[in-house]
Amino acid sequence: MDSPDDLKLLSRDQLPELTREVRDEIVRVCSQGGLHLASSLGATDLVVALHYVLNSPRDRILFDVGHQAYAHKILTGRRRQMPTIKKEGGLSGFTKVSESPHDAITVGHASTSLANALGMALARDAQGQDHKVVAVIGDGSLTGGMALAALNTIGDMNRKMLIVLNDNEMSISENVGAMNKFMRGLQVQKWFQEGEGAGKKAVEAVSKPLANFMSRAKSSTRHFFDPASVNPFAAMGLRYVGPVDGHNVQELVWLLERLLDLDGPTILHVVTRKGKGLSYAEADPIYWHGPAKFDPETGEFKPSDAYSWSAAFGDAVTELAAHDPRTFVITPAMREGSGLVGYSKAHPHRYLDVGIAEEVAVTTAAGMALQGLRPIVAIYSSFLQRAYDQVLHDVAIENLNVTFAIDRAGIVGADGATHNGVFDLSFLRSIPGLHIGLPRDAAELRAMLKYAQEHPGPFAVRYPRGNTERVPEGTWPDIAWGAWERLKAGDDVVILAGGKALDYALKAAAGLDGVGVVNARFVKPLDEKMLRELAGTARALVTVEDNTVVGGFGSAVLETLNALKLNVPVRVLGIPDEFQEHATVESVHARAGIDAQAIRTVLAELGVDVPLGV
Amino acid sequence: MDSPDDLKLLSRDQLPELTREVRDEIVRVCSQGGLHLASSLGATDLVVALHYVLNSPRDRILFDVGHQAYAHKILTGRRRQMPTIKKEGGLSGFTKVSESPHDAITVGHASTSLANALGMALARDAQGQDHKVVAVIGDGSLTGGMALAALNTIGDMNRKMLIVLNDNEMSISENVGAMNKFMRGLQVQKWFQEGEGAGKKAVEAVSKPLANFMSRAKSSTRHFFDPASVNPFAAMGLRYVGPVDGHNVQELVWLLERLLDLDGPTILHVVTRKGKGLSYAEADPIYWHGPAKFDPETGEFKPSDAYSWSAAFGDAVTELAAHDPRTFVITPAMREGSGLVGYSKAHPHRYLDVGIAEEVAVTTAAGMALQGLRPIVAIYSSFLQRAYDQVLHDVAIENLNVTFAIDRAGIVGADGATHNGVFDLSFLRSIPGLHIGLPRDAAELRAMLKYAQEHPGPFAVRYPRGNTERVPEGTWPDIAWGAWERLKAGDDVVILAGGKALDYALKAAAGLDGVGVVNARFVKPLDEKMLRELAGTARALVTVEDNTVVGGFGSAVLETLNALKLNVPVRVLGIPDEFQEHATVESVHARAGIDAQAIRTVLAELGVDVPLGV
Repeated sequence: MDSPDDLKLLSRDQLPELTREVRDEIVRVCSQGGLHLASSLGATDLVVALHYVLNSPRDRILFDVGHQAYAHKILTGRRRQMPTIKKEGGLSGFTKVSESPHDAITVGHASTSLANALGMALARDAQGQDHKVVAVIGDGSLTGGMALAALNTIGDMNRKMLIVLNDNEMSISENVGAMNKFMRGLQVQKWFQEGEGAGKKAVEAVSKPLANFMSRAKSSTRHFFDPASVNPFAAMGLRYVGPVDGHNVQELVWLLERLLDLDGPTILHVVTRKGKGLSYAEADPIYWHGPAKFDPETGEFKPSDAYSWSAAFGDAVTELAAHDPRTFVITPAMREGSGLVGYSKAHPHRYLDVGIAEEVAVTTAAGMALQGLRPIVAIYSSFLQRAYDQVLHDVAIENLNVTFAIDRAGIVGADGATHNGVFDLSFLRSIPGLHIGLPRDAAELRAMLKYAQEHPGPFAVRYPRGNTERVPEGTWPDIAWGAWERLKAGDDVVILAGGKALDYALKAAAGLDGVGVVNARFVKPLDEKMLRELAGTARALVTVEDNTVVGGFGSAVLETLNALKLNVPVRVLGIPDEFQEHATVESVHARAGIDAQAIRTVLAELGVDVPLGV
Repeated sequence: MDSPDDLKLLSRDQLPELTREVRDEIVRVCSQGGLHLASSLGATDLVVALHYVLNSPRDRILFDVGHQAYAHKILTGRRRQMPTIKKEGGLSGFTKVSESPHDAITVGHASTSLANALGMALARDAQGQDHKVVAVIGDGSLTGGMALAALNTIGDMNRKMLIVLNDNEMSISENVGAMNKFMRGLQVQKWFQEGEGAGKKAVEAVSKPLANFMSRAKSSTRHFFDPASVNPFAAMGLRYVGPVDGHNVQELVWLLERLLDLDGPTILHVVTRKGKGLSYAEADPIYWHGPAKFDPETGEFKPSDAYSWSAAFGDAVTELAAHDPRTFVITPAMREGSGLVGYSKAHPHRYLDVGIAEEVAVTTAAGMALQGLRPIVAIYSSFLQRAYDQVLHDVAIENLNVTFAIDRAGIVGADGATHNGVFDLSFLRSIPGLHIGLPRDAAELRAMLKYAQEHPGPFAVRYPRGNTERVPEGTWPDIAWGAWERLKAGDDVVILAGGKALDYALKAAAGLDGVGVVNARFVKPLDEKMLRELAGTARALVTVEDNTVVGGFGSAVLETLNALKLNVPVRVLGIPDEFQEHATVESVHARAGIDAQAIRTVLAELGVDVPLGV
């Protein structure tokens, strides 16, 4: 199976067997750990059906988020490379335009497929082409504002395109929102329960005499398949078909063949099950969304006993909320990833999951802060990019008491360019009044969260993907706000670093007498007092950050030294001004030149007597 | 009328007279020019009714965008200050928390009211309070993704709140989108046409025996008022009431009294007319959205013959598209503001208005670029903040051929903190591969647009609010990409500035022999070659920018000098790291220290022999 053309040599009867083989391959590949298992299994029948009917890459198939597209990769000539997925130099974990002509969009963030598909349909029509455009979007991604807003324009523009709503009742966590309830309602409709036959008949009734029918009663077809007669898709001007069984590949082929020829936008509502075909994954699709290494036969895996930064945050806010009734935690669909399962159970009335809608998460927090609460928005760095304006316009202008707990800050490794959180220091630093902290460990994270809950103004705390040391319950140290901390004496060359980069700095400076290390735990405000001291004594400064060098921490140090008219050589180490492909975190850091070895190289260049090796 | 309490002393019969007085006041104030006339007139009856029924500030009234809230300002003790609106030290043109306890949110960008209102309702319930929360949102703002996504969570959370949909069939331009068509459909429903009496009866039938009725058939009430039975609001879990006449103040009072006591979220669909009560404004509400100075009796005004930057852009792309079939221009609801009226008529099939949905504008452009077009997104700087992630994730990662034409960059003056475009250089500069240009005039704008259309990769061009010189049709100069330009010789101190700031630099340097001026028309890539030359010859450099000093152009110069290990004193002039309140552009620039006088002061500090005055 080197291309989707090979797939077309199969008879329809052979498709179910093919989907079993593809699933087996997915399970085998995913058992190495860290891959998107459950959603890829859920979408397999749909992907096979799409490639059987469509002619990719001429026809465009857009997978929203792209982590459900493993079957798509397997069917488009990448089967042999699947074991390299998410590894350095290997396949991306998402679809990626530069990886294959069959990958219509480069993606990783949710809810982008519909606007992209609209753009492609308009481009096709503007250029007099006639290929198909199909977007595959999950019910979770559909809660994103830009997906809903795109539907609004799609309904208006009325271009030929198919939207497959892959409805598996969850994004990564359990799904939330009114649209979700509505779709649950649709699913219990009689028409769906009657199974395959009825679906076939219903479509046949329209598709056979379609030309006449549609010219006679164009608007009424819109609602023909809508069992509830109360359907937001229909109201938005889309033809709605469904819900249908997303695991009956032959039925899907039959339907797609007919729907793809219809003019205007059509939405096909397909019901699938995450983890389909693998009993243990079907039973707990949230764990099996991205499981650790496991035995493909039994599903056995070794539970990790590491203490993640996410868990440290979750434990901290669970305790914090017990003491402070103003605490309220908001997540955009990342309860598990943000360490909030315990919190959501301990404080269900002060917990809100808004779905994949980062903008709503931030502005809802603004509303709470305006009414006296102290909301905390738990969010991944790369997803906070979605809410830059809301942080600035809704929170910062009135200096509201909102804390942003930014997880996955810095290089995240295997998820690659779309998920690296290496821009937050740059885009947040330009927002007036917003303070930014980089804790070095769980205790410092707690100190910052507590201080922020007790003092006015917005605060962002960033911490990396990965693990930290557990601290005892009740650990609530005080912190001197805005003050850096000298961790290692040394006045010749001083390394300034916060968060993850601080570990590298300490390792690099170990045993080097003249080299000092400062825990630059606040990027805003900068500790001008200490910076002034250092500029007066040190021969050179080295800044190290797990953020782009453009506009980040090093840039802040340069700006401040310049404003204070202080003159000391500074070496700025950080992520270069390029998108970083997937690889291990360590590998990217080494390439970027911020790990301990790279710091030692710079120290040597600065004339420090550095022994070989770290 | 010093507070809404005074309003409550009136009988209901007196309300129509009051709305006339309020409207007269609004027209009088707006005739000075530059104010939001049409939307404020349209919302007057609604605002009077809300304040008659509610108890602000205890009850919270959130006005989306906030530019329709002049009646609200008049009724909440700010009548005497109305002539100061949008002037330095005077009232804000929008609602503003720090201006009045009656202003529930600080706003200027669209679509934020619903998430804010949800946050307030959740905060109220978490704190055991019982005040009302009412969001007033226009049909234009409802096309914004974050509003639609917030509705999804509001329907799910089921908190007591009222959403008044102020449906005037337009945002600032004509409205677009499928939701809009749907609402037009609702408006012609018989129930609405039958007028006030029927509306009253319909509500009475439910509200009187409400307790019983709702416990018996809770779900059916949701649809009771829904004449079409195909209603996206109902599908999202909101009780839908309407549409009703938004200019019958007594009827509105009657309705609000009943609806505000209902549990759960209710949406009241009110139909209003922009410019209501002023014949010439009703006839052309797009012009009268924010008219220039006019005669309040006759509506006469002196048309401006100035040539705006927006017009320069519109003329350029209209010509460009005539020669290049790949050109496609996208606007998020800013056809008039972005100078695109002519373009939209000349190239209707390569023009798209996505409504107030900046994220969709950018990602739709990405989809077009992936299929071979050369889309141009016309967008205001402060609204591009909404689409930071889409620029980064959907456009820049694959280095797509999308141009961002950023209007209203820099200080915009009277619209104040929410609308100042002083962050774009900072947030865009950190995005790998995105080039950024600052043309000094219409010819340079054309040169940059043409080059960008002919070369690969994303490009952002920023230009200010205000006017420039007209250039002849067919003006398409070439430009040396990434190269700065020496405009004035002088090797002692050299001023680097682009765009608007360049005008100040030239004025400041005029007649000063030793002072050179460089047109730093590219912020990315920086002209390293020239920077190296300047660092070798000049005694000091001065950077001037109409952008925050944090992470902006000056910061780029510092970073580059540092990376190149060049040592020359640099003075960085730009907008300080604080939100800038409304005032004239000139006044803010003077305060910020970037105008010609301020530059001269810095030159004097640097030892240049500067005569007094500019």
